[in-house]
Amino acid sequence: MSVFLAERYSLFKEYVPGEQPSDRKYVKLNTNESPYPPTPLLKERLTAQSLDELCLYPDPQSKKLKSAIAKAFGVGINNVFVSNGSDETLYLAFLGLCPDGVAFPEISYGFYPVYADLCGLNALKIPLRDDFSIDEKQYMNIGRTVVIANPNAPTGIFLENDRIEAIAASNPGNIVLIDEAYIDFAGETAIPLTKKYTNLLVVRTFSKAYALAGARLGYAIGSEEVIADLEKLKYSINPYNINRLTQEAGIAAVEDRKYHDECCAKIIKERERSSERLRSMGFTVIDSKANFIFVKHKDHDAQRLYLLLREKGVLVRYFSDEKIRDYLRITIGTPEQMDILAEKLETIMAEEERP
Amino acid sequence: MSVFLAERYSLFKEYVPGEQPSDRKYVKLNTNESPYPPTPLLKERLTAQSLDELCLYPDPQSKKLKSAIAKAFGVGINNVFVSNGSDETLYLAFLGLCPDGVAFPEISYGFYPVYADLCGLNALKIPLRDDFSIDEKQYMNIGRTVVIANPNAPTGIFLENDRIEAIAASNPGNIVLIDEAYIDFAGETAIPLTKKYTNLLVVRTFSKAYALAGARLGYAIGSEEVIADLEKLKYSINPYNINRLTQEAGIAAVEDRKYHDECCAKIIKERERSSERLRSMGFTVIDSKANFIFVKHKDHDAQRLYLLLREKGVLVRYFSDEKIRDYLRITIGTPEQMDILAEKLETIMAEEERP
Repeated sequence: MSVFLAERYSLFKEYVPGEQPSDRKYVKLNTNESPYPPTPLLKERLTAQSLDELCLYPDPQSKKLKSAIAKAFGVGINNVFVSNGSDETLYLAFLGLCPDGVAFPEISYGFYPVYADLCGLNALKIPLRDDFSIDEKQYMNIGRTVVIANPNAPTGIFLENDRIEAIAASNPGNIVLIDEAYIDFAGETAIPLTKKYTNLLVVRTFSKAYALAGARLGYAIGSEEVIADLEKLKYSINPYNINRLTQEAGIAAVEDRKYHDECCAKIIKERERSSERLRSMGFTVIDSKANFIFVKHKDHDAQRLYLLLREKGVLVRYFSDEKIRDYLRITIGTPEQMDILAEKLETIMAEEERP
Repeated sequence: MSVFLAERYSLFKEYVPGEQPSDRKYVKLNTNESPYPPTPLLKERLTAQSLDELCLYPDPQSKKLKSAIAKAFGVGINNVFVSNGSDETLYLAFLGLCPDGVAFPEISYGFYPVYADLCGLNALKIPLRDDFSIDEKQYMNIGRTVVIANPNAPTGIFLENDRIEAIAASNPGNIVLIDEAYIDFAGETAIPLTKKYTNLLVVRTFSKAYALAGARLGYAIGSEEVIADLEKLKYSINPYNINRLTQEAGIAAVEDRKYHDECCAKIIKERERSSERLRSMGFTVIDSKANFIFVKHKDHDAQRLYLLLREKGVLVRYFSDEKIRDYLRITIGTPEQMDILAEKLETIMAEEERP
């Protein structure tokens, strides 16, 4: 840190993303990426000409991309915002759309408290129930911006749409932001509700179900007024926020619905198979609707399992937070990757149990 | 605008980027892009495998890219920061590195006052001399962060390194940020001075000389402590700020020094040729060290010329700001593009002069 940094940031704790190690090849089940490549359409769309045209700025309005997203979700182009990963949308929402403070689950995406601190917001961190589910009643009539990941992370638990609607209906003066990063693996999206509730903002990403984590593309769907707010903030920070290749990649991904659906179906099927297998090995596996599972074992320390798996070339995510330190979050990979995980776990647990 | 936007942003004026129209083909001389494509190396580097690997997050530390930049400029990897366009670096600097307020030239990159407002900074806008040059004495011992574009925009005027050094030396307690977006067309960079002055931060871009405006890539070089500040802020907002393809494109661009130098030489040569030609047509052409020229004509209104050129398919940049509304900023294109510009101007001016 330098003497030039504003004092308010000097003790500030930044976000720590999952490891992206380059020291060796891992079975990488730690950052909820897709185990499948993005749509093969990309290879047709990103041509030599696309590369030559990199000398030109991208369309700052991302009109073609927004139009493709709008068409896919049955909304207007002015109901769509796009950003450099969904993190950028989340940041802008914390920066500008939380004038009365913010409330989010105590256990959720680890970036929410970072953004709240960075933006100097009064933040209410609402505990989950003992079973890690969200009690929607605690968010009703709350008089401040609500941010909920659905399915929640790192638990994978899904909150039904009628409960989201109840939260939005009871807070007409405040934004209710639903972070649907993992919705494609779950079920019903809250997008249709944005037509009824101007305060409802649904934030999504191309990083998971569209297999484009490396392209950095997020989007949000909401009322025209709220999307205009996000645009205003974007134009005050980074107008050309989405590069040309990512705009093209996003269009291809959203247009190839069939490929998206097939990948999601494979991941969901493998999630159910792996959940069963880990249960049979003595793990408690929370019922996940995401592309990861959240598991613990009564006889084996989670951090130790994480470290031993890492040694054996399998990366999963461990959180040191007191309330979830007994758990591991494991991204759903291919069946082959999940078999390796299960085998390594069996080996580790057998070695640990030897007298 | 919605009722949910924080009041402090409700009257806020966002930045307005240059037109990126899609209604027809233009000779596009309005946003200082390179008229040449990026290095042909890109076609070798961005392979089918690069596209398949988009399912994985990029390296949030951008180690390979930073390493390529560090090598090219003879600094350490911890002296390099990379961002989603240089705008992102500028925003982070205004956000976190201006605890005592900021000073910048009254006429310069239009985003500086936007960032200052957004971040709620006390901003001193220092007038240029009558000839549009920067008087460095006005920035000495100023006790606040200094932001200077060098060459300055939209004038193209270059400030020599000994004057930059004098500003940095006289403000040891504050950051002196030199925005070298156009330095490749000018001459001596201030990068070597960053080894002597920990308060000196040089911000640069791949958008101009590296012909990668569409890839969105900026970088900054400074002391390890200041770079660490920028990293901390980045990890608090958008850790995965540079997508995989842009990281690869940046590495290829910086490694192909020969191609970069050839493109810059062609642009500089054309700048001198076009400056001469426009002078012979009665324009005042400020001596530019950038990839654009700033021109006015005593007999022809700048806004009118801008509009008539636009009608004829040539886009240049007009600013309505009172102090520069007599001028046009014209990006240096290929010789063929600049010939079209000159011919259209001749036609327009002849038509206007007809009784």
